[in-house]
Amino acid sequence: MMKPNRSHILTFGINYGVASFGSAICDLAPKNNRFVETFVMLSPLMTSFVNIPAGSDFTFENLPYGVFSTKDNHTHRIGVAIGEEILDLSVVSKFFDGPILREHQNVFQNESLNDFMRLPRAAWSEARKKLQELLGEYSPLKNDSALSKKALVPQSSATMHLPAQIGDYTDFYSSIYHATNVGIMFRGKENALMPNWKWLPVGYHGRASSVVISGTDIRRPQGQTKPEGVSEPLFGPSKLMDFELEMAFFVGGEENPLGTRVPIEKAEDRIFGVVLMNDWSARDIQAWEYVPLGPFLAKSLGTTISPWVVTMEALRPFMVENPKQDPVPPAYLHHEDPYTLDINLAVSIKPENGQEHVVAKTNFKHLYWTLKQQLAHHTVNGCNIRAGDLMGSGTVSGPEEGEYGSMLELSWRGAKEVPVGSETRKFLKDGDEVNLSGKCEKDGKRLGFGPCRGRLLPAE
Amino acid sequence: MMKPNRSHILTFGINYGVASFGSAICDLAPKNNRFVETFVMLSPLMTSFVNIPAGSDFTFENLPYGVFSTKDNHTHRIGVAIGEEILDLSVVSKFFDGPILREHQNVFQNESLNDFMRLPRAAWSEARKKLQELLGEYSPLKNDSALSKKALVPQSSATMHLPAQIGDYTDFYSSIYHATNVGIMFRGKENALMPNWKWLPVGYHGRASSVVISGTDIRRPQGQTKPEGVSEPLFGPSKLMDFELEMAFFVGGEENPLGTRVPIEKAEDRIFGVVLMNDWSARDIQAWEYVPLGPFLAKSLGTTISPWVVTMEALRPFMVENPKQDPVPPAYLHHEDPYTLDINLAVSIKPENGQEHVVAKTNFKHLYWTLKQQLAHHTVNGCNIRAGDLMGSGTVSGPEEGEYGSMLELSWRGAKEVPVGSETRKFLKDGDEVNLSGKCEKDGKRLGFGPCRGRLLPAE
Repeated sequence: MMKPNRSHILTFGINYGVASFGSAICDLAPKNNRFVETFVMLSPLMTSFVNIPAGSDFTFENLPYGVFSTKDNHTHRIGVAIGEEILDLSVVSKFFDGPILREHQNVFQNESLNDFMRLPRAAWSEARKKLQELLGEYSPLKNDSALSKKALVPQSSATMHLPAQIGDYTDFYSSIYHATNVGIMFRGKENALMPNWKWLPVGYHGRASSVVISGTDIRRPQGQTKPEGVSEPLFGPSKLMDFELEMAFFVGGEENPLGTRVPIEKAEDRIFGVVLMNDWSARDIQAWEYVPLGPFLAKSLGTTISPWVVTMEALRPFMVENPKQDPVPPAYLHHEDPYTLDINLAVSIKPENGQEHVVAKTNFKHLYWTLKQQLAHHTVNGCNIRAGDLMGSGTVSGPEEGEYGSMLELSWRGAKEVPVGSETRKFLKDGDEVNLSGKCEKDGKRLGFGPCRGRLLPAE
Repeated sequence: MMKPNRSHILTFGINYGVASFGSAICDLAPKNNRFVETFVMLSPLMTSFVNIPAGSDFTFENLPYGVFSTKDNHTHRIGVAIGEEILDLSVVSKFFDGPILREHQNVFQNESLNDFMRLPRAAWSEARKKLQELLGEYSPLKNDSALSKKALVPQSSATMHLPAQIGDYTDFYSSIYHATNVGIMFRGKENALMPNWKWLPVGYHGRASSVVISGTDIRRPQGQTKPEGVSEPLFGPSKLMDFELEMAFFVGGEENPLGTRVPIEKAEDRIFGVVLMNDWSARDIQAWEYVPLGPFLAKSLGTTISPWVVTMEALRPFMVENPKQDPVPPAYLHHEDPYTLDINLAVSIKPENGQEHVVAKTNFKHLYWTLKQQLAHHTVNGCNIRAGDLMGSGTVSGPEEGEYGSMLELSWRGAKEVPVGSETRKFLKDGDEVNLSGKCEKDGKRLGFGPCRGRLLPAE
């Protein structure tokens, strides 16, 4: 193969359009490719012409997808967050002229991401390269003020919507620290983990209709509870409202027909991207209702997700070794390549008239089961999974006390008070706003997930 | 009020179009209204101009909705079954000119029933009256052979599809005989029913994507199981495949926003109609996976429903007293009006090279919780429910041995062989076709649900 030097690169750049520089750099080509190495030295190409304030979640490495509308245009449009702006893909769809997307530019005219998610993984990659061009230093938008004014929308003027129509929502239970904590509280230390827990990623079908976008108020539910020592169940507002710090991935790619599976070697082709998720939970309702068929009304009162879907390609630099699994799970769950995400997570509570206070910090890498394992398990029975389906991780807790992803664990089932600024909590109070955050940082690269907020309203 | 005699009626008929006779007769007017009583005497108006063979499920009293396509027209269209025909509503939509539907004729041009289901209950009633006209003795189609040829499609030439896009699918567990049987098998007679069972209709979130239409083959799933006495779980095809004889209702009406409930007094406005449902279950996978979050892969391998949605209005004559509930459930679940359906149910198995054999007969009236109670409970926490959502009853078993709605109960967990023609079964064998049927009959009125079939294919 020809080994290019700087002049070769410039020639290449002129021949193929300077805008393709940025994309070539971010290609996932093997590291021993001299051509790519030389490119990487040209660091100015890695920046955007859009201003990205220090500390912004929406760096040039991120480029997450969302669905938004504005006051003057109520149509839901697909956009990409960059700095404090949104690139409106409905305005720039004609630029997506690569070999796959030129036949599918219409997906960027849709009101949800489902059709784009349904395209093959190579199309997602092609779209990312084009976005790096469109938002890079040599963007065709940079000197076209009319176009860039139309295409770039301030985030402050946008209302965010669910990124996809969620056909089905599944929630796993994949943090060993969370499962162990809950097990100890309810069954004692000896029987903390159920016998199946280390053999398969335990999960359950959740309710898709009650998944809402960050910023949606959540109403404290009414329901039946049966506190200890009471002979008959009570009816009234839940007294043990909780958050669950989770992440969730959106499924992409073509649906596997019912009766066929997604083998673990191909699971990556079906994992589009990740959001933050708060799986609001009414612990007292859950305790009374969940035997033997699992959580029901304790969960379907609302599940909040962050609006920006961070793609697996953006997350690639933040993948680390998978946790050691002992016992070794069955072959259909085996994979060696790292697919565990190093994402710093935090959850804060802002009381109605108080200051926001971080109550827990943890990391997504504490997950015992990988996203690939979750998907391969979900389909091993032939269950069909569609683009736009959402799969939650389960509460993410770390090994230490400050790393627990729920009030249930932080207050140890109400045994202790958790400081929240000048107040304390065992469970959530009306008016509390819960906010999740997620950030990745490595070798100067960084990205964040944006807000995942919701406020607890009093019961009806 | 004027008391009409026969001549009044004829005048009325001429003034308002003879076709409105049939509809007026089937109106739910109070029984002490002389006007209606007189009408009911004119029995010829209660027949259809379409031939309805003796024993047909699709009588003039039925008029169920479904979605179909034909070889020469692949578009999915909404139709109504009558005898051996389907009335194609996309052809006759302009006839729906009543006060509500004249503004919404487009719902009959859709590829699914969701938009029609979303209309208020009064619109469903209006549609039924119009259908009684269009299919009655004085139908405008009767003497218009061009129109009737276009509008009436033989069922034998149609392919049926899911009647609605199912946003969410919930399955309840509302047969006391089934819950008790399963409880005795797994926990002994003393603890058969869980403490919550008689206080609330236990249910769980199911998987919507794997709900399929009658006639779809079901693949025996692979999965983890842990038979007694084995130290580590095994992986392979399920060995304990089962059916579950259920019915399910489709939700209609406007979505209740998240955070609001559907009070039991208004539940009827949200219950559109009923289908048969076979909730295929892999008992060995279920036993290993379901603790603590409920059934997952044991169920999402496929759930078969019958294609024709029989409306609650058609079922009204077959409603009987509700079962006595002791203890009396909380107020949000109280209702006195009969909403229990007297539907004769049967399940048959046809071995691959054998004859179809009825293995169980039961009745839907054995359900402990009514459909209204299920819906009121589902939304008491503020869970939003959308038109097209599907709610299963859970396995319907009666009190006697021949009335059990699953092989698990019929073979008493494999303790005895169940005769299936010249063969026997403990659980299902590859190649077995399972068929459910449902029939109502009372005072000369009758209707049926059509087929709910599926064949079990060998594991991949």
